[in-house]
Amino acid sequence: MSPAALLTAMLRVEQVWLDGLVTAGIAPARAAGRLTVKMADADGLASAVAAGTEAGGNPVIPLTRWLRSTLDGDAALWVHRGLTSQDVMDTALAICLRDVLERVRDELDAQIHALAALAGQHRNTAMAGRTLTQHAVPTSFGLKVAQWLTALLDARDALDRLPALKVQLGGAAGTLSAVLELARGSGAADPGRTVRELLEGTACGLGLAWAPPWHTARGPVTAVGDVLVGACDAWGRIARDVIVLGRPEIGELAEPSVIGRGGSSTMAQKQNPVLSVLIRRTALSAPQWGATLHLAAAEAVDERPDGSWHTEWPALQSLSRATASAAGQASELLTGLRVDPHRMLANLEAAGPAILAEQTSMRELSGNTPGSDPRDYLGLTGLLVDDVLHRALTSGGHHGS
Amino acid sequence: MSPAALLTAMLRVEQVWLDGLVTAGIAPARAAGRLTVKMADADGLASAVAAGTEAGGNPVIPLTRWLRSTLDGDAALWVHRGLTSQDVMDTALAICLRDVLERVRDELDAQIHALAALAGQHRNTAMAGRTLTQHAVPTSFGLKVAQWLTALLDARDALDRLPALKVQLGGAAGTLSAVLELARGSGAADPGRTVRELLEGTACGLGLAWAPPWHTARGPVTAVGDVLVGACDAWGRIARDVIVLGRPEIGELAEPSVIGRGGSSTMAQKQNPVLSVLIRRTALSAPQWGATLHLAAAEAVDERPDGSWHTEWPALQSLSRATASAAGQASELLTGLRVDPHRMLANLEAAGPAILAEQTSMRELSGNTPGSDPRDYLGLTGLLVDDVLHRALTSGGHHGS
Amino acid sequence: MSPAALLTAMLRVEQVWLDGLVTAGIAPARAAGRLTVKMADADGLASAVAAGTEAGGNPVIPLTRWLRSTLDGDAALWVHRGLTSQDVMDTALAICLRDVLERVRDELDAQIHALAALAGQHRNTAMAGRTLTQHAVPTSFGLKVAQWLTALLDARDALDRLPALKVQLGGAAGTLSAVLELARGSGAADPGRTVRELLEGTACGLGLAWAPPWHTARGPVTAVGDVLVGACDAWGRIARDVIVLGRPEIGELAEPSVIGRGGSSTMAQKQNPVLSVLIRRTALSAPQWGATLHLAAAEAVDERPDGSWHTEWPALQSLSRATASAAGQASELLTGLRVDPHRMLANLEAAGPAILAEQTSMRELSGNTPGSDPRDYLGLTGLLVDDVLHRALTSGGHHGS
Amino acid sequence: MSPAALLTAMLRVEQVWLDGLVTAGIAPARAAGRLTVKMADADGLASAVAAGTEAGGNPVIPLTRWLRSTLDGDAALWVHRGLTSQDVMDTALAICLRDVLERVRDELDAQIHALAALAGQHRNTAMAGRTLTQHAVPTSFGLKVAQWLTALLDARDALDRLPALKVQLGGAAGTLSAVLELARGSGAADPGRTVRELLEGTACGLGLAWAPPWHTARGPVTAVGDVLVGACDAWGRIARDVIVLGRPEIGELAEPSVIGRGGSSTMAQKQNPVLSVLIRRTALSAPQWGATLHLAAAEAVDERPDGSWHTEWPALQSLSRATASAAGQASELLTGLRVDPHRMLANLEAAGPAILAEQTSMRELSGNTPGSDPRDYLGLTGLLVDDVLHRALTSGGHHGS
Repeated sequence: MSPAALLTAMLRVEQVWLDGLVTAGIAPARAAGRLTVKMADADGLASAVAAGTEAGGNPVIPLTRWLRSTLDGDAALWVHRGLTSQDVMDTALAICLRDVLERVRDELDAQIHALAALAGQHRNTAMAGRTLTQHAVPTSFGLKVAQWLTALLDARDALDRLPALKVQLGGAAGTLSAVLELARGSGAADPGRTVRELLEGTACGLGLAWAPPWHTARGPVTAVGDVLVGACDAWGRIARDVIVLGRPEIGELAEPSVIGRGGSSTMAQKQNPVLSVLIRRTALSAPQWGATLHLAAAEAVDERPDGSWHTEWPALQSLSRATASAAGQASELLTGLRVDPHRMLANLEAAGPAILAEQTSMRELSGNTPGSDPRDYLGLTGLLVDDVLHRALTSGGHHGS
Repeated sequence: MSPAALLTAMLRVEQVWLDGLVTAGIAPARAAGRLTVKMADADGLASAVAAGTEAGGNPVIPLTRWLRSTLDGDAALWVHRGLTSQDVMDTALAICLRDVLERVRDELDAQIHALAALAGQHRNTAMAGRTLTQHAVPTSFGLKVAQWLTALLDARDALDRLPALKVQLGGAAGTLSAVLELARGSGAADPGRTVRELLEGTACGLGLAWAPPWHTARGPVTAVGDVLVGACDAWGRIARDVIVLGRPEIGELAEPSVIGRGGSSTMAQKQNPVLSVLIRRTALSAPQWGATLHLAAAEAVDERPDGSWHTEWPALQSLSRATASAAGQASELLTGLRVDPHRMLANLEAAGPAILAEQTSMRELSGNTPGSDPRDYLGLTGLLVDDVLHRALTSGGHHGS
Repeated sequence: MSPAALLTAMLRVEQVWLDGLVTAGIAPARAAGRLTVKMADADGLASAVAAGTEAGGNPVIPLTRWLRSTLDGDAALWVHRGLTSQDVMDTALAICLRDVLERVRDELDAQIHALAALAGQHRNTAMAGRTLTQHAVPTSFGLKVAQWLTALLDARDALDRLPALKVQLGGAAGTLSAVLELARGSGAADPGRTVRELLEGTACGLGLAWAPPWHTARGPVTAVGDVLVGACDAWGRIARDVIVLGRPEIGELAEPSVIGRGGSSTMAQKQNPVLSVLIRRTALSAPQWGATLHLAAAEAVDERPDGSWHTEWPALQSLSRATASAAGQASELLTGLRVDPHRMLANLEAAGPAILAEQTSMRELSGNTPGSDPRDYLGLTGLLVDDVLHRALTSGGHHGS
Repeated sequence: MSPAALLTAMLRVEQVWLDGLVTAGIAPARAAGRLTVKMADADGLASAVAAGTEAGGNPVIPLTRWLRSTLDGDAALWVHRGLTSQDVMDTALAICLRDVLERVRDELDAQIHALAALAGQHRNTAMAGRTLTQHAVPTSFGLKVAQWLTALLDARDALDRLPALKVQLGGAAGTLSAVLELARGSGAADPGRTVRELLEGTACGLGLAWAPPWHTARGPVTAVGDVLVGACDAWGRIARDVIVLGRPEIGELAEPSVIGRGGSSTMAQKQNPVLSVLIRRTALSAPQWGATLHLAAAEAVDERPDGSWHTEWPALQSLSRATASAAGQASELLTGLRVDPHRMLANLEAAGPAILAEQTSMRELSGNTPGSDPRDYLGLTGLLVDDVLHRALTSGGHHGS
């Protein structure tokens, strides 16, 4: 979701469309052209696009101008014909978002795999359960991991439930009037059918789904945004646990140790939980980017809105990049997490008999003799861990990967 | 999602659980009881719960206290045993959210039905297409309605894709240790299985799905929030169009006229687009409530967090109530919308030849003779409307209602 | 900021205005009337207003209707004349906000007083300084309190810098045309001056400042919102420290102990930090209410906007009530905070020599012999505490209370 | 607020601090050095800092490493001594924010100047007043501009009320222990005083105010954020009016016409209101960035928090850059705004007698004969414009520029 990736995607959209125009016979064969950017021109194009975006609110206008100035005659004449800026931009965003979602899914898969192993390994590792920060009743670290895992499974299921990303191909006001006009001029027998085939062919060539123009129906964008924010929530929640349980006075968890990370220039002893801190940074920011996307959707008007479409890009870019970054950090954190079962047990025992107060109060009703070992009051934790592991093993298969 | 509805749902959770304890043989038969609130007590209970919520951050503690003080001996002893406050609260929220979602779905269905008819009726009603507020190319009102409809279909599909709402049954720290202890005391042959049956029976009795405790995995809540916000986006986007096109200088649309609404005390002529204004009010507020839900999810920690669970309720209540309200307003708006095709045509013709500039510029490429009637430059609008109508007719069936 | 308080304020606005009309000679003497609500009518009025708000988006329309139906002939005729709904609503909001701000200021004053004493008392109480959750260097609890105090002083200064709250008196579109017309009809020598005196007299009678109508310039509202959110930030930040340092493994701070608060029905030992949890609940919600107020301001249009004015009320009400509530909770927390200096020292000593690593590394440069007692490496903490105490003592005086 | 500007500011902080250490005699004279970045190194440094930021969550660590590797022996030894990363970062942010605020203030001044002229010029230009989008009563364009002006004056006053930006100088945990240790080693007679003079001298050298460390008291940051968001609100509100009144069917306002802006590649006639669209883009995004800053403030904990400090930078950067951009766009818009008084009058007259309905209803009370010319029912608009112009002329003087 970098500016370069977006530019590449926009070029690809223009290329597939131009190819399609020629294939469909709407544009003459001599209009075919390769929209390649020479190394030497890449920087110039990037800054022209950046400057044009700021001036005109839209990177496609400078891109098209640049293409027309660098292409040969007929290609220059036919490139971008029938499209509107939003078509190119939205379709390019769909391509970039697809890549972001794939990356996030891969990371989620790796994390789910790591947590499933961890939950199984610590199915019976007793620790203090804490509610509102205070010792409540004993639990197992396996069940805590199963809760994390549940959140990741929910995030992956939400990602898998997303509708396929769609091309945006509508022309100036979503009516496809320009390309139909061109198809008529080309002498097509059934211009409407010719255009329809061009649309579906373009979608196919870009690996996206086809749908009627959705210029002002931004649900597909907010749906992606919500899934990304939801994934950040899941990582943020885990990061908070790692941070809390990694406090020196608690010491039950620690981040993977990597030379050169988390250190301090003057305090040689410091080993900061940098991965968790960076994840939390994103988790605290993402909901507001998501809100901006929703506002942009709610503010759409006319056939192209008066600002809210332009509101979408920066929020989507910030959100996508931060999420992709947090995804990698979470994988690194979860695959290298250091667990100290002895410290868990020590803290549990230090909690004293108070942590068994519930068991004692149950005795009045049940008539059982309460024990004195908190490891014997773990309830159904083992079975609950198994349930979540079962879900982890059986879900996600419809992705086909 | 009113305080009264939440209280009713909480009582129902306690009732089904108590029944389950007795049925499972965990509690003795004499513990059975009916948790009814006498009319005369309803206000007292409501204010006790409200006061207790503020003091303790949790309405279940005062509710349980009240139940214990009003029930007979054994029922008083056994009510709420094995549950924690969050179990009751989350499960009651799930019940209330289910009702909200059902209401929203019914309204969406009615709106989709109304818009499908409207899009078909105006398939060929020409009007000016407007982008960035300026006249662009001609379009049809049918296509505009198809865009609205697309957003509503997206919203309904998102609602239908939601995972089933789940009970929350975990006890103090999600380990189910208390109820397992009680099951052991009751002499059950396989206490774990007994508890498991109780859990699934409770879910069944409440019409919710069962899942392991999700105390700190709040994806199910944010997913509902996202769907509600997404629906508000769709209505907000429509409301903006109605508001713009209903400006007196444009005059293409008007809200349904209802005696006593939208008037002004001193300006007798005023007919304000009140439904759209109220919908926009909600659409501008909803994204921030959604963001709060995501923040609450990201901030979860331990086995019950240090504030973020408490953050969830007010946001969810505000969002649910406002969405339900906007749903009804949108139905009223869309089923009674007044369309003025003559004014649409007049505005289109007043736009003059400029609105055909694109067609003219296409001529250089296509060699067609451009026409002078904007109604002849509607592109593929008819087919695109048909596509959306086809989607409206064929989707939504898996809901089964 | 309850519905009842808002209703009372709206009635007061109508009363002072009606009085003013009579005093100015615009309305005849016989139009004078007392707008009192009989006990028996209060509920009916409240629900009429609530219902009317939902239907028309505006509580003033049903209020005016009710007033006209209950007042005597001439008073009924003249009440509300010259005003528009927004005048009454905004002015009533200003009255309610003034009360909220006064309450928040009183609480901040009490908290500042309490923290100043606490900082002085613990000027030399050594504890571990923690950065990114890990032990960094020694600090003093006094300096930590001084940081909290700095945030509260910033919040109070921001409150004191707020411009005076203003009446809103503009009539239908902010032109004051209706009341000027009435003044002309009354035979006033200089109708413009008569109206101006009425406006200023009304402001004076309500204890608010006068300014030209600010119907669509909502800076005064967002400024109040920002101050309230800022105060919640300050309390939220303190609450997080109390929560962290009150974890059983750290145990340096504890909330004031109150019978019946923070308990658990089944876990007798629990003493939850409920005040801090509730404060954090508000601190996590407030920024989004503030954002909604800003969006409402940015979306204003025309002489009264198409939804954003209606967006303001619920956000302002939620924010005001939650802030007032958190203000009281913070006072209770800070005036009763329990500090355990022994535990602070124990944790500091348990950190071992690592917490003096910075001192050691400074030795290479300074040539000093590092000590081994962390209490001797407190830097300038004492002087910094004194600086903040000096600010606390010398600021706030211009409030005059 | 570009990465380059931030880097420059960070270098300046390190330079002034190193100079101060030498001047104070804490570092030896031979430690003096110039922290200049050679052209050839600039890109390398920038990317080292960017990479290090992502890895460590903090750009100061790689910057310091780079400085130590490029400086001569003693300068390399002494650079950054006594500071912590947050000191450098926060102080550099303060420098950058000061520049942003100055630019915003200059633009606001220019806009206020332009609007004051415009309001005076159109003091009597009649137009339709619109509420909830419908014609209400006549007003003047001058009064509309006065409302815009009021919002800008509020924004400038808020900016002027901001407390002075402060240095952040506290060392690892805000105790200044390292620099005090160094001062002791240097043989200073009164090390505390020596350090205090160094602190105040550094503030003075950077043109910032001195205050005790405010590492976790982030009110100064949120206060700047609120002011920036408030300015965006004011511009956003104006942009909406320009957009609405510039719709072709209304046609009362138009953006300044600039070759190459607002055009469309295929629709030659289009003149899009691009400045207003871009302003609205920022106005819809800014509140959520502001909310993120508040959340970051509320989430601070310990002596440096576990993520919320890191949350601040990207939000502050996005907000600052977008605001500076919108400030320039608003100046361009307001200094070149095109007003069509004839169209205003035509729309007003087209509204017909309905727009005088209020005047008619006032007649029952006042006994006046209503006129039929809407230009005669402008109420106190002229005097109200004068009031706002008076405020514009008399305020802002205490800025001294």
